[in-house]
Amino acid sequence: MLLTERQTVTLFHPPASLTLESGGRLGPITVAYETYGTYNGANAVLILHALTGDSHVAGRYRPEDPKPGWWDPLVGPGKAFDTERYFVVCSNVLGGCQGTTGPASLDPATGLPYGPDFPVVTVRDMVQVQRALVERLGIRRLLAVAGGSLGGMQALEWAVQFPDQVAGSIPIAANARFHAQGIAFNEVQRRAILNDPAWQGGRYYPGPGPAAGLAVARMLGMITYRSLESMEEQFGRQVRRGGEDAPWQDFDPHFSVETYLEHQGEALVRRFDANSYLYLSKAMDLHDVSRGFPSHEAALARIRARMLVVGIRSDLLFPPQQQRGLTQDLLKAGVDARYLEMDSPWGHDSFLVDHHLLAPTIRDFLEELSQGEEAGEPLRPAASHPEGRRWA
Amino acid sequence: MLLTERQTVTLFHPPASLTLESGGRLGPITVAYETYGTYNGANAVLILHALTGDSHVAGRYRPEDPKPGWWDPLVGPGKAFDTERYFVVCSNVLGGCQGTTGPASLDPATGLPYGPDFPVVTVRDMVQVQRALVERLGIRRLLAVAGGSLGGMQALEWAVQFPDQVAGSIPIAANARFHAQGIAFNEVQRRAILNDPAWQGGRYYPGPGPAAGLAVARMLGMITYRSLESMEEQFGRQVRRGGEDAPWQDFDPHFSVETYLEHQGEALVRRFDANSYLYLSKAMDLHDVSRGFPSHEAALARIRARMLVVGIRSDLLFPPQQQRGLTQDLLKAGVDARYLEMDSPWGHDSFLVDHHLLAPTIRDFLEELSQGEEAGEPLRPAASHPEGRRWA
Repeated sequence: MLLTERQTVTLFHPPASLTLESGGRLGPITVAYETYGTYNGANAVLILHALTGDSHVAGRYRPEDPKPGWWDPLVGPGKAFDTERYFVVCSNVLGGCQGTTGPASLDPATGLPYGPDFPVVTVRDMVQVQRALVERLGIRRLLAVAGGSLGGMQALEWAVQFPDQVAGSIPIAANARFHAQGIAFNEVQRRAILNDPAWQGGRYYPGPGPAAGLAVARMLGMITYRSLESMEEQFGRQVRRGGEDAPWQDFDPHFSVETYLEHQGEALVRRFDANSYLYLSKAMDLHDVSRGFPSHEAALARIRARMLVVGIRSDLLFPPQQQRGLTQDLLKAGVDARYLEMDSPWGHDSFLVDHHLLAPTIRDFLEELSQGEEAGEPLRPAASHPEGRRWA
Repeated sequence: MLLTERQTVTLFHPPASLTLESGGRLGPITVAYETYGTYNGANAVLILHALTGDSHVAGRYRPEDPKPGWWDPLVGPGKAFDTERYFVVCSNVLGGCQGTTGPASLDPATGLPYGPDFPVVTVRDMVQVQRALVERLGIRRLLAVAGGSLGGMQALEWAVQFPDQVAGSIPIAANARFHAQGIAFNEVQRRAILNDPAWQGGRYYPGPGPAAGLAVARMLGMITYRSLESMEEQFGRQVRRGGEDAPWQDFDPHFSVETYLEHQGEALVRRFDANSYLYLSKAMDLHDVSRGFPSHEAALARIRARMLVVGIRSDLLFPPQQQRGLTQDLLKAGVDARYLEMDSPWGHDSFLVDHHLLAPTIRDFLEELSQGEEAGEPLRPAASHPEGRRWA
């Protein structure tokens, strides 16, 4: 059994601080992270979690834990991210609420939780903090960065921002610039939280906060993480247990899909901070790897890592045409890029469900990256790696 | 210029009442409706509006009205629903808030608005009220019923419930049984309203009611009425006017798509009752033409009307595979059915936008129905109309 523990490190101590994309400064910043395996100087893989994820990517804290980390089928001894070969690191994102500094953390200037005084952070800011973390761990260059959704945005931003520090990148179910419909879904979710009187302008600590609003946000999020076909398969028009006897008298849930969503909403409220939800969804909106570069192509052309872009056939939130388009854009920019499409019915969440469709390709990709690093070959643009330009 | 006026009639006077599908009884029921053209005994067409629509399908109340009715490009002299040939009727649905009895109406038992004491109504109940209306207007049999979305559900239910009273039916962007993902989207919208403290258990009249909650519901609704591609085309990552100067400091709208949604939310609040929104979305959830029949096929096999089923290529809320499947189910049940797919990028709302893609087919279909009625041919099952079984 893979046992792990959550560690923390505090970075950007005064007088240092992190200069944010917004221009503001933030520090000190505590980062919660977990590591798996042993670092040998050339085998570090950074895994990046999604919106409500955390650093607990695999294994258990104690043998009796009922559930392992969120990507356990892919991370561990002998698995695709083989912890007997690779040194895996996963950290909670900046702005989160699972150990890394976020809006619920204490503002050293006031001694009170930041709340709405926490600065708006971006995916690029998150990646800056991750770089500081891995450098603190003695890692100068990553073999790979990998993640889905918000984690995929980070994987891509890593490759753009630090072309010399990452040999390979696996952005899954993500895009290079968040799109209008995605911003729209996020805006509705934020509005549900902001409208909740219990939000109190974001200064609700240590109270329970906007539980009802956060639950509505999560319910909508869950629809976008699923697919038409998987919801139809799982729920259809099935009436909730006991619902047959009390139909149509009120607006309580009548169908199973309604109780499912309500449970999902309640479950998130128990484990997640509403302000973090606001900040992280805003970071998704602001995601655009081309910001500050002359063009989108110019941003992508910075990449020296080999790219394994993954799309999901049934993804409602990040439809696969986006990842196909990204792969084409990467190739056009001279980047070594290949594309894998998961033929999964589970929607956006497929990368957390159909691990077997990811495992072989990730395993092979890491092997290829390892061989490249061992050979000491400098990363070259895709033109010199025609064999890498597979189009799956 | 086509001028019209809204009329009202009160039906189900005591001791009569409408027996609802839920088993409850409701009456009296006032119905708001508009008519266009002249009835000649065989030319009546009933048009059925969508969730937040009303009886004002075409024309203007006064010449100076800035905007005509909601389907004006299709309804009027010389148009597809040619009011020089057809007698067009459109009524506000049961449970609505545009003149027909709904939760904001006075409960004769108390003299107060029904509010949450209004019974849960179904699409079938709506159709019962419409039948009472057209019979009051002296119409024994309809040449056609037509509508999109919730209106399309009604068009289908008409054909199933009253097979001898309708010669043709045009359900657009609808399905025969509402699906899990649709219920899920509706549940999130209702939850946003129910969570708003201003909802007050539904007894908020004559106050403004849950404006913030209704706005969130509408914002989400609008995303489902649009499409990924049309939102990308219209908004992309465009920043709202003035937003460049105040980026990233808070959670106010930053992108144009956010201000668009907020405007849409506010606009609906000004014209629509939140309780009606709850009741009508619940009616969508409960929509299932097979309820009470031995099987789905048995319900569809009741239909003697010719069916023109319309789907929309980019529809997110009612994807076109549903309408294609419905057409196949109809044909399998021996119904005279044909299918038109609108090649529109505007999502679910395309039937309110790309009128030109509907007009020729509707015009031809009505002509065919008229000839059938003039010939006095009894409606027969599809098997005897092989020419009607076109598959577009």
